Amino acid sequence: MSIIDTDIHERADLQELLPYLDPVWHKYITDYGWIPDRFLPYSQPTAGGLDRLDSKPDGTRPGGSDLGLLQRQLLDEYDIEQGILTGWLNASAMQEGWTEFKTALMSAYNDWQLENWIERDERLFGSVHVNAWDAEGAAREIDRMAAHERFVQVMLYIGDQPYGGPRYRPIFEAAARHGLVVGIHHSENSPTALGRHRYFAEWHTLVPQVFMSQAVSLIFNGVFDALPDLRVILIEGGFTYVPHLMWTADQQWRELRHEVPWVKRPPSRIIREQMRFATQPTVEMRADQLQTLIDQMGSDELICFSSDYPHWDFDSPLEALPPNLPEELARKVFYDNARATYARLPATVKV
Amino acid sequence: MSIIDTDIHERADLQELLPYLDPVWHKYITDYGWIPDRFLPYSQPTAGGLDRLDSKPDGTRPGGSDLGLLQRQLLDEYDIEQGILTGWLNASAMQEGWTEFKTALMSAYNDWQLENWIERDERLFGSVHVNAWDAEGAAREIDRMAAHERFVQVMLYIGDQPYGGPRYRPIFEAAARHGLVVGIHHSENSPTALGRHRYFAEWHTLVPQVFMSQAVSLIFNGVFDALPDLRVILIEGGFTYVPHLMWTADQQWRELRHEVPWVKRPPSRIIREQMRFATQPTVEMRADQLQTLIDQMGSDELICFSSDYPHWDFDSPLEALPPNLPEELARKVFYDNARATYARLPATVKV
Repeated sequence: MSIIDTDIHERADLQELLPYLDPVWHKYITDYGWIPDRFLPYSQPTAGGLDRLDSKPDGTRPGGSDLGLLQRQLLDEYDIEQGILTGWLNASAMQEGWTEFKTALMSAYNDWQLENWIERDERLFGSVHVNAWDAEGAAREIDRMAAHERFVQVMLYIGDQPYGGPRYRPIFEAAARHGLVVGIHHSENSPTALGRHRYFAEWHTLVPQVFMSQAVSLIFNGVFDALPDLRVILIEGGFTYVPHLMWTADQQWRELRHEVPWVKRPPSRIIREQMRFATQPTVEMRADQLQTLIDQMGSDELICFSSDYPHWDFDSPLEALPPNLPEELARKVFYDNARATYARLPATVKV
Repeated sequence: MSIIDTDIHERADLQELLPYLDPVWHKYITDYGWIPDRFLPYSQPTAGGLDRLDSKPDGTRPGGSDLGLLQRQLLDEYDIEQGILTGWLNASAMQEGWTEFKTALMSAYNDWQLENWIERDERLFGSVHVNAWDAEGAAREIDRMAAHERFVQVMLYIGDQPYGGPRYRPIFEAAARHGLVVGIHHSENSPTALGRHRYFAEWHTLVPQVFMSQAVSLIFNGVFDALPDLRVILIEGGFTYVPHLMWTADQQWRELRHEVPWVKRPPSRIIREQMRFATQPTVEMRADQLQTLIDQMGSDELICFSSDYPHWDFDSPLEALPPNLPEELARKVFYDNARATYARLPATVKV
């Protein structure tokens, strides 16, 4: 079975980015001790923190920071044919402020990603990191990186602002212009409807909320109507919420579309035509239960396998989805759906 | 078919509450112009605002403010056998602050509700309004009103704080002590994971989020484990999210229960044993789709019919649920499930 993994986290040491970063910014990393914002108020869920313990080189460096280890533990171990890098250090997962530095940092990250990961393993494809808080700068960065054919998506971390509003539109326009998928990935700065709650288990259970919020924001603000070629994939929110989202959004659209007359299609149809969902974190279910969920979604083309390597709740391709899936469905989830979504992924011939 | 309606909004004019309110507070209503907080930044969704236009007495007073009209439009029209009042002016739907006034106002509201509604129509049953921000005062008010046998639940509006934490525990303890269900009802001060968004249609689509958040808060903070007799019903959030909530919460509990060792049962089992869901707002679906959802929930005893009279998206008992429901299921949804949930509802014999 050929596999495309749509969520693989490579990770930079900040020092590694310096050669790619305008020297005017160096001192903040080398001397001033800048690090990305930290948001989570919880103790870590596992002995490895948010990483698989065995993914940490030397047991101390972060998971995903070593190409050789990632190749052995993921690409070789599960015979991954193509993998899409989803990174770390995404400016949309940080607070607004000091926008210029963060836009520059995203450029450095993209060049580092290209040289150290994408060009070193032909199975790996890139995501253009951008600073969503600086949408014009983000669009320029997308135009710059789209020249490299092995970047296949624009990466936004899901953050704490709805992306449907006009402020963020240049990002989606730039992605659509270049046939890049917009991948929206979970991030630590994302709240739930009642904030952060008291326990990590609560916050983590409620992670899918912010995905529903972004989907609703993009749909009702008309982003998909304005950009019919746009494809958006929601990553690390699972997919069991999709039938509920479709039902509720369709019903509200039927009753309240006078408020948003630019939304021409029922939300469920917009979702089926322009949105996709990476599978991780999966939940335990039988094959017939998954089939029922897919029937409720009205399409077997909406979900794409993702492992979320190297994080603590990594989904193995061997165990993430129910055993005994019909072969045609398994092929779609593990391979065909991602290939159809990522227009820039090259055809490959499995050796 | 006998019907119990679990969500009927009666509404007070503030002036009507004065005879029931300690005179020390009168001047804020009579002279200082106090009114409840307003939160929604949207234009109204319909010509009647948030009410059915035809439910407004004289076309100007708020829906639900006239018993005779409510009797004609709801109780008589649909032959409702028992109806549970869910009120208005709930202090948990207001901002914290000026706690003493709001606790006193809830007492006045309860006495007004008893005299003007419950004692004037034997089909109507009451909800004890409390100020959740003052949990000790709320518990005293619950003890006081529980002496009246026709109060069947404690009413919390869902608000913007998770109720699972220790601060709110006295409310749940008092309810369980008296066999009162805790009804948690949607409110305008409830945000979504990304705040209020730009359009009413977005906010309204995302209303179920805050219900998932409260369910998760109550479950993972151990409220149901500490109070095995407690019953909680979530009102005006619909029910299509329940399978997703069960799958996600169970999976996180399996992986992270070391963090919350007081949670002894899988969340889905806690939900089946101690939580219920009022149906409104329903979404269009076929009978077989509803049956599938019920199969996913693992019980046909979890959903209870509610109309949400007199609000703009009122669900008629004739149209809210799919036509051609099997008779046994319809009887459970429209009657049996509510009777089994509300221990204090008296048995009635349909004439």
